[in-house]
Order: sequence, then C-alpha cells, then structure tokens
Amino acid sequence: MLLSVLYIIGITAEAMTGALSAGRKKMDWFGVMLVASATAIGGGTVRDILLGHYPLGWVENPEFLVITCVAGVVTTGVYKWVIKLKGLFIRLDALGLIVFSIIGTKVAMGMGLHEVICVVSALVTGVFGGLLRDLICRQQPLVLHDELYASVALVASVLYLALLKFGVNDVTSTIITLVVGYLLRMAAVRFKWRLPSFHLEAENSIH
Amino acid sequence: MLLSVLYIIGITAEAMTGALSAGRKKMDWFGVMLVASATAIGGGTVRDILLGHYPLGWVENPEFLVITCVAGVVTTGVYKWVIKLKGLFIRLDALGLIVFSIIGTKVAMGMGLHEVICVVSALVTGVFGGLLRDLICRQQPLVLHDELYASVALVASVLYLALLKFGVNDVTSTIITLVVGYLLRMAAVRFKWRLPSFHLEAENSIH
Amino acid sequence: MLLSVLYIIGITAEAMTGALSAGRKKMDWFGVMLVASATAIGGGTVRDILLGHYPLGWVENPEFLVITCVAGVVTTGVYKWVIKLKGLFIRLDALGLIVFSIIGTKVAMGMGLHEVICVVSALVTGVFGGLLRDLICRQQPLVLHDELYASVALVASVLYLALLKFGVNDVTSTIITLVVGYLLRMAAVRFKWRLPSFHLEAENSIH
Repeated sequence: MLLSVLYIIGITAEAMTGALSAGRKKMDWFGVMLVASATAIGGGTVRDILLGHYPLGWVENPEFLVITCVAGVVTTGVYKWVIKLKGLFIRLDALGLIVFSIIGTKVAMGMGLHEVICVVSALVTGVFGGLLRDLICRQQPLVLHDELYASVALVASVLYLALLKFGVNDVTSTIITLVVGYLLRMAAVRFKWRLPSFHLEAENSIH
Repeated sequence: MLLSVLYIIGITAEAMTGALSAGRKKMDWFGVMLVASATAIGGGTVRDILLGHYPLGWVENPEFLVITCVAGVVTTGVYKWVIKLKGLFIRLDALGLIVFSIIGTKVAMGMGLHEVICVVSALVTGVFGGLLRDLICRQQPLVLHDELYASVALVASVLYLALLKFGVNDVTSTIITLVVGYLLRMAAVRFKWRLPSFHLEAENSIH
Repeated sequence: MLLSVLYIIGITAEAMTGALSAGRKKMDWFGVMLVASATAIGGGTVRDILLGHYPLGWVENPEFLVITCVAGVVTTGVYKWVIKLKGLFIRLDALGLIVFSIIGTKVAMGMGLHEVICVVSALVTGVFGGLLRDLICRQQPLVLHDELYASVALVASVLYLALLKFGVNDVTSTIITLVVGYLLRMAAVRFKWRLPSFHLEAENSIH
C-alpha cells in the first residue's frame, strides 16, 4: 500500500524529468510521452522481459502508462517550475530509486529466483529507465559515469533481503530500506561519491 | 486475407527504405539485412515481446524474415530506382503504417487486453520499426520530430476499435480504417502537419 | 560438456574485451560490469527473448553473470596484459563466436523451430552481444562494417545443421564445426575478407 503510493509518486517524478530530456532534444509530444514513459516504467519493463514476468505492469494496469504520458505532456507547460524545484526532484528521484529497487527485489523473490537475481532485478528496475532515456535521447548514459546510483540500488536490495532473512517483517524492512537507501543516495549526490572508474585511451583496442 | 497481402507489401517497402539508411551508413550486406528487417518487422517484434505474445510472427513464419532480407539486399542493386520512386515509397510507407496499426490493434484485442493497450499495441507496431532503424544507424529518430506519424497510428487504431464497437463488421472496419488512415498520413506529409514540440535549452537540466 | 567449458572461456574473454570498450568511454565499475556482461551474455539474452525461451541462461545460472562481472572488473586492473595478449583474445573471440553459434542453433532446434530460425538463432547469439556493447558505448557497430563475423556464424550454423542431418553424431558435428568455423574466422581476420558493402550518399533519402 505505502509502496503503491510511493510508486505512483516515483513514476510521476521520473516521467517529468524524462520529459525535460525530450525537450532538450526538441522532440514533439509523442517523443515527450515516449521518453517520459521509458524513463519512468522502462526499468520495470526491461526487468519483466528479462525475467519472463508477464503480463508487464503497465499492460495489466494501463493507468500507469496514462500517468507517465500525462505527466510528460504537463511538463511541457510547467517545465519552469520543474527546473525551479530541482532540489525536490532530486529527492523524488532518490525516493523512486529505492522504491523501484524494493519492487524489483520483490518481483524476483515472488518468482522464487536466486538472491543474486533478486539484486540484479532491483538494479535493472532502478537503473534501466534512465539508460533507455539516454539511449532514445542519444546522450551519454549518466548512470555509468556519475554519483553512486546503481550501487545504491544494490545496497538497498541487499539490505532489504538481509532484513527479511533475519526475520524482520515486510513493512519494517521496507521502511528501513527506504530510509537508509534514500539517505545513502542523497549523501552520494551531496558528497559526489563515485565508483572508481576505468579510463583507457582510445588506441587501446582489441578490435 | 486482404490484410495479409497488404502486410507483405508493407514489410517489403519498409525493408527497402530501411536498406537505404544502412547504405548511408556504409554498412555491409549483413548490416543491410539487419536494418531492413528491423525496420520492417521490428515494430511487431517489440510489440510481441512487450505483450508476451509468443511465438513472434517471423519465428512462426520465417518467410517474412526471408522477404525482408532479400528486399534489403535487392535494394543495394536497384537503389537508384527506389530513390526515383520516392513518391511511391512514401505512399507504401503510409499504407504500411495503417496496416501495422490495424494488426497491432487486433493482436492486443485477441489477447483480451484493455483498449488503451490495444492502441499502444498499434503505436508500437507502427512506430518502433523506424525507431530501431534509427537506433542501429545512430541517427536522430525521425518519428519523434517529423510530420504526424505516431498520431496517425493512434487515430487509425481508435477509429478501428470504434467501428467494431459500433457493430461494423471486421472487413468494413478494416477498409474504412485503411482509407481514412492513409489519407490522414498523406495529408500530414503534404501539409507538414506536426505535433506541438517541446524545445528546451541545454542548460535546463535536473541531472 | 566440452561446449560448457568452451562457453565459460568464451564469455570470460568476451567480457574482458567488452570491459576495454567501457574503459575507452571512461565508465565507472558499474558501467564496466554492464558492458562486459552485455558483450558476453547479451547475444544469448536477446536470442532467448526473441524465441520466448525462458528462463534466460544467466537467470537460471547466476554464476555466468558473476563471471562476466568479475572478469570485467579484473580487466580494469590487468588491461595492459589484455592489450598485450591481443592475438590471444582475437583467437578466443573467434572460438567464442563458433561456440555461441552452435549453442544458438541447439537452443532453437530444441524448441523444434524451422531451420531458418535455427540459423537466425545462431546469428543473434553470436552477433548481438557486440551490437549491444556498441549501442551502450555509443560507437559505430563494428560487426556491420568489418571482417566476416555474422557470416561466419551463419556458415557454422548451417554446417552444424547439415552434419547432423547427414547422420553425423553430435560430438563429431560440434568438433568439426568448431574447427572449420574457427579457421574461417581467423582467415577472415588475416585476409580481411569482407562482405560487399552498400555505400550511399547522404542525400539519397526517402524521408
């Protein structure tokens, strides 16, 4: 229940930031709806396709898709406010990331899959929306360069799985994961925590 | 039956225009076949994967894939004619778009899915072939910028669903949708009808 | 058994060369793991999604995914050796291509699919890993321009199918295909055999 409400807030916020990317590429309204939806529900879609978890969430509940399309188009009218509220959207994005991670973990658990796959499921749910957005908008995939993002999804998923394993009930585990994950992501943004990165000169090629 | 014939004409024409994109990227014959096939049958493939509608059309009927590969390679020999017949190919593309939309709508209807998803299914069938082509060829996705394309697929799908709902039989609904959809698309091309678009300066970013 | 051992060698080698691409794009460790895994097991993943062959290999055997992620991160430490051993990696890539082709063929055969689809399955398994790598790294897809690669996968698949059809047992067919396919790929690299390619000037557009 809590998770459902947070999920809807999460996809709305993600759709609105996705729409800004479409606007920077001067797309039309269809492009805006496509990028908004891909950003918001693309991660869950890729996860369900990889796991063979049918029907997809938005196919069963088309209202999710309607929400992301409407949020995208509304953003074309109120984008100045969205940009002014940048701080709020960064917070909502952090919250969304943890919500997506918990949902991803639960979907894979519900299918009886290995813990490693539960964590991968969380990662895919949290990260692939942004990857699809960057792919459609033909821009450098942020998530592969910037502050801890996938790592936060991973930590959230592992924490949630561990809490359940130690017998903590589902609601408490969810709330603890939300709080810890959110704080971790916000700390990563504030202090610019990054993973080590791998820099290779262009001539170092095998092909 | 009519739809099957039109479908084969449609995928052949789409494969040939796809091959031109591969040629502009100086691809080899394998690239030509890949881009031709992705353009022609990629939309239906993405739709079936999203809906969990297995087996895919071309897996069950491999001759569709053979047609698109052959059409692609043949185009490398006759491309001058294809370019001279530009007007014909624009018409065939318009026809193909409506055929794909009707088929997409029917597939989702056949699975008992919500009307919203039937329309989305039409959109994906009609639009994602071109999106995949532009992704593989690393070019700006035309369909997110240019004359009404996705919107035509949407109107065709809604019209077809509405006709069926009002008790018009399938053949009549199909023919009316084909005629109206085709004329709408050709009008959009001629009069350069576009959706409103969303232009944002590059600095308006949340990330 | 032989095929399983070669498969693990193959995905490890592919993951390591994939990691180099990630390094040239200055990605972080998550990006390195993503690109390494996409290169190594992306082809099989796309094949299984297209064929509706669930669960995916790495979902059932998460150790494959662990191997590719570890191989990717290890490469960030030993990349100088990998580049020095370029000749070895080109050989391992050739071997991997044939192993992937045979496995792809077997998967489609096991599902009772048409021979054309068995060959397509081999192609997708062998080629789409590299395509996904180039898509994520936003670079020209090598496989659509360079020395025979997809064609080698095609020949290997057809040869393997033909041997089985002529009553040769599976082990012998596998070994013959591995040797012939490997030599064909190495010859293509050495003598720069290419498919004919299709060059079109940019103004030759229908859209």
